[in-house]
Amino acid sequence: MPRILITAGPTREYLDPVRYLSNASSGKMGAALAKAALNAGFEVTIVSGPVGCHYPQELRVIRVTTTDEMLQACLQVFPDCVGAIGAAAPCDFRPKAVSVEKIKKTGDDTMTVEFVATPDIFAELGKIKQPNQWLVPFALETCENGKEHALEKLRQKNGDWIILNGPKTILGGYAEVEILDRTGTTLATLSGTKESVATQIIGTINAELRMQYAE
Amino acid sequence: MPRILITAGPTREYLDPVRYLSNASSGKMGAALAKAALNAGFEVTIVSGPVGCHYPQELRVIRVTTTDEMLQACLQVFPDCVGAIGAAAPCDFRPKAVSVEKIKKTGDDTMTVEFVATPDIFAELGKIKQPNQWLVPFALETCENGKEHALEKLRQKNGDWIILNGPKTILGGYAEVEILDRTGTTLATLSGTKESVATQIIGTINAELRMQYAE
Repeated sequence: MPRILITAGPTREYLDPVRYLSNASSGKMGAALAKAALNAGFEVTIVSGPVGCHYPQELRVIRVTTTDEMLQACLQVFPDCVGAIGAAAPCDFRPKAVSVEKIKKTGDDTMTVEFVATPDIFAELGKIKQPNQWLVPFALETCENGKEHALEKLRQKNGDWIILNGPKTILGGYAEVEILDRTGTTLATLSGTKESVATQIIGTINAELRMQYAE
Repeated sequence: MPRILITAGPTREYLDPVRYLSNASSGKMGAALAKAALNAGFEVTIVSGPVGCHYPQELRVIRVTTTDEMLQACLQVFPDCVGAIGAAAPCDFRPKAVSVEKIKKTGDDTMTVEFVATPDIFAELGKIKQPNQWLVPFALETCENGKEHALEKLRQKNGDWIILNGPKTILGGYAEVEILDRTGTTLATLSGTKESVATQIIGTINAELRMQYAE
């Protein structure tokens, strides 16, 4: 069976042994997509950051902590997959310096931290993507011209379709997303429980793939 | 029955709608202490940050996200308690400015964030502590002179005993702690599963309280 890669959950970038920068992400959308993909007949490898939610047993699950670890796992898995969906919220900055010991509060009770960008996982996958592979990143946009930003991201990452979602989707059970193709056409606007939206996302991708093969 | 307050889990300090600074903390030690305290005949209110673990049903659980929310909840609950144990890992810094929209990566791919100290929850409880109440903060120390730092914290917070633990204890099921009194005397050195260590911590506190009443 064709295998797909799904990234899920947040990643963490540690400042010292206890403090870290992270992104709000429950892993639930990744889990729902994995279940929907299994139901649609795919095999699934999930690369997941630290989450409290449980993944279906039929999955191959690779657990990671940092964005770099997530990237390395994805680079290893992707060549054996027909496609990848990026439902993770990898932390896109890491501290420039990591302290081996817990940072102590100083007298003036302030702390200035310089962060540098972490690698863009789906942009890296976009570079090694073969003509028979597809890539579907997510874009979480909280401002008005979110669609424009999402399309820019889709091109930067060399993706095929992008799933645009708002901050409402992050932690709850409810999702509201829009699937766009590279021309900016909205293929679907979906809302409902994460399970129902995930099923419709997999359905939309499958329908697009069938259309491409038919062409 | 006498009620005790237990804080548990991490807190989060958001930079924008998705990114946050946090501390590694599973909430398991708080849950184990709560169970041990119930078994010892206490009623328990737990004030907990976002965790994946489950708390026993017999507890009163107050869920919070930020350090300030944890402080407000504790200030409300503590006056009705005989004592408090601080097993939480509250994030001790918050960003000076919080962005309403998701911060975009800039061209040079760096980000400098100024953080300011959040309130010290147990130091605040120490200020309102009555003579018949007791306070047991935790100190997570990763460097060599950890005991010294822990004692300084104990005095700053006006606590009665302090539980010194190392970074090994943070996420796993295993704990290794030392209980110190204000003179620096080690009352107990405990190691084992979090459940077993929690039972021994409650036992040690109870024994100390009995000794005080006997005096």
